[in-house]
Amino acid sequence: MKNKLFLNLAAILFLSSYSLLNAQTTSVEDFIPSSVNQAGKQYPQVNSEGKVRVQISAPDAKYVQLDIGAVKYDLTKDENGVWTGESAPQDEGFHYYQLNIDGASVPDPNSLYFYGASRWGSGIEIPAKDQDFYALKEVPHGQVREQIYFSETSKDMRRCFIYTPPGYDNDLTKRYPVLYLQHGGGEDETGWSNQGRVNLIMDNLIAEGKARPFIIVMDNGTWRMPRRDENAPRDTTQPQTWPPKNWADGFMNTLLNDIIPMVDKEYRTIANQEYRAMAGLSMGGMQTRVITLANPDVFSYVGMFSGGSISPKDIQNSPAFKEKVKLVFISYGGRELENPRRGPWGDPKENTKALQDAGMNTHFYVSPLTAHEWQSWRRGFYQFAPLLFND
Amino acid sequence: MKNKLFLNLAAILFLSSYSLLNAQTTSVEDFIPSSVNQAGKQYPQVNSEGKVRVQISAPDAKYVQLDIGAVKYDLTKDENGVWTGESAPQDEGFHYYQLNIDGASVPDPNSLYFYGASRWGSGIEIPAKDQDFYALKEVPHGQVREQIYFSETSKDMRRCFIYTPPGYDNDLTKRYPVLYLQHGGGEDETGWSNQGRVNLIMDNLIAEGKARPFIIVMDNGTWRMPRRDENAPRDTTQPQTWPPKNWADGFMNTLLNDIIPMVDKEYRTIANQEYRAMAGLSMGGMQTRVITLANPDVFSYVGMFSGGSISPKDIQNSPAFKEKVKLVFISYGGRELENPRRGPWGDPKENTKALQDAGMNTHFYVSPLTAHEWQSWRRGFYQFAPLLFND
Repeated sequence: MKNKLFLNLAAILFLSSYSLLNAQTTSVEDFIPSSVNQAGKQYPQVNSEGKVRVQISAPDAKYVQLDIGAVKYDLTKDENGVWTGESAPQDEGFHYYQLNIDGASVPDPNSLYFYGASRWGSGIEIPAKDQDFYALKEVPHGQVREQIYFSETSKDMRRCFIYTPPGYDNDLTKRYPVLYLQHGGGEDETGWSNQGRVNLIMDNLIAEGKARPFIIVMDNGTWRMPRRDENAPRDTTQPQTWPPKNWADGFMNTLLNDIIPMVDKEYRTIANQEYRAMAGLSMGGMQTRVITLANPDVFSYVGMFSGGSISPKDIQNSPAFKEKVKLVFISYGGRELENPRRGPWGDPKENTKALQDAGMNTHFYVSPLTAHEWQSWRRGFYQFAPLLFND
Repeated sequence: MKNKLFLNLAAILFLSSYSLLNAQTTSVEDFIPSSVNQAGKQYPQVNSEGKVRVQISAPDAKYVQLDIGAVKYDLTKDENGVWTGESAPQDEGFHYYQLNIDGASVPDPNSLYFYGASRWGSGIEIPAKDQDFYALKEVPHGQVREQIYFSETSKDMRRCFIYTPPGYDNDLTKRYPVLYLQHGGGEDETGWSNQGRVNLIMDNLIAEGKARPFIIVMDNGTWRMPRRDENAPRDTTQPQTWPPKNWADGFMNTLLNDIIPMVDKEYRTIANQEYRAMAGLSMGGMQTRVITLANPDVFSYVGMFSGGSISPKDIQNSPAFKEKVKLVFISYGGRELENPRRGPWGDPKENTKALQDAGMNTHFYVSPLTAHEWQSWRRGFYQFAPLLFND
């Protein structure tokens, strides 16, 4: 019995060490620096299997880990105190990640930084088979403009980023439709142009004649309590909108009262419902749902990327929405639908069918083999943009 | 003798621990979060003495240090594995810094990130007595635009940032002068608007009627070897400009042949020498010196912030410079002049006097109590901008 146990243990140890060895030696050695590394940095790297290899000098550390996709991978130290290690294969596209050095979660000093998960942190790009649609190409490019403006709603200065299409400054008589495009929870107004590469997707679509040029407004939907003078008398004859019921209402006020009027004043927009769209990812999709259902006179195209659906019940409650809105677009990452999170909107595919049956122009797209991440949203946007503002 | 030694040692130990204790308890406890922290982050903090206090959780670390101003300060760990520590007083204004965790140099996960020292890393803002001039105020704001364009010189896509003044998009008949404004070594095209806050300085100057509205172009002066077809036949009848003599020549080609023509095409500029300026900090100042001396037909205002001077000999070698250039502006941080680094331009103050004596309109400014850092350059720009394009 004892001997048998010993033999079993030996076999397990042998097999374990073999499989560890095997796991370490089977990576395809075609690692190249990630395309979103800082200038001149050789790490992090990715290989053709989608594995991520990181490296950092930490001579006095007890342990260093790569933290990506909710899994931590141990790095190993060489004689110079340099730690190296790699992850399991990752899905195509962009992922947030971080390093863990003796218990401290920090950005990798070699990568560019992106705002997500409520912090500026490292990002990596796994080359995707379809990466051409968001590549930087020798085509005419639009601009991404940082716009600072005063918000009457929140009584402070706000910032948004605005994409103007190529040629915007050349023909000063031309006016453009506008898409209001929102980020997800824990992200901000920088997400769609930084990790989403939405400006490059638009530039490429326009160069190929696949999308009509339009303006894209990317503001911060993470709604903060406005400053308020508590001593000011309340007008009790008016409906109380304070405090706002939730973040959708809070951002709705800012969007309708501050952002849209500012954009229509400062940019050459076509300032009516027919040429105004709203879309968003995750939390931004849910905001899009609430805000467009409540304002069918303001928006005529509606997009939700991994952010819920419009349900048949929604339409019943808002006949004007069905009458006036020209397009509902719903998309998800394929991996999300393996374990769909059901919200008040129900199953997105069933809803799409029900909306179509009810006569609503509804599109449904699923990004193959991607999760609740930016590659799903890049692809969703790429499918969505050509459908907008086609008279 | 033994007893005396013991007593001496005891006294030394007592005094040492007293002075350590003293050093730790004498900080003024008015620390507040830095203005360039990530949203919602309580650390890093600064106090009224200009000390920087950082905090990070690293339960398994042997040591953690704050690395700022070329000095490393040890942090101490509490019972929860959270490390806290602070620096000696720092000069007013913006500083790069990093953390060191068991030998790994990493960004502080709580700060915003800025490109300098050839990497994206942490920054902190020590409130300055004169910080009002670069504060975000309720005034009309210009835009900072990310502009992507193709460079014939380097045969690739390049990126710059362009500041357009408030109202640029409102009166489409108006044309504007242009300042080409360069960063320093190890920095890039993001520096002047991120850590330099040049857009806010301009917005404030314009709001107060102190500067004429102009466009500012911020490109990347870190010149990389262009791709070149080695098999292409060389035209040996032409002067050989390959390889470029140095980085100034390399960037000069890009500036003259790519950037200026692109800006004059895409923006409503006044496209002549009289309304074109060039300035830069550190390496960018030295590039400004070389490029403007070689091209007095192109630029009429010249600014160098901590980046050398024009010498009387320079003027002798370029009579056209003296004839055509309307202004030379030279500035330094006060601490730099304590140990001036002498380049081919000689002592900046002496040169200023000599240039003035030679009839050149020359301004000299010294930023009080600041070093080779951004507060010197913000102040330099603030002095420089009102002198530009005054007909």
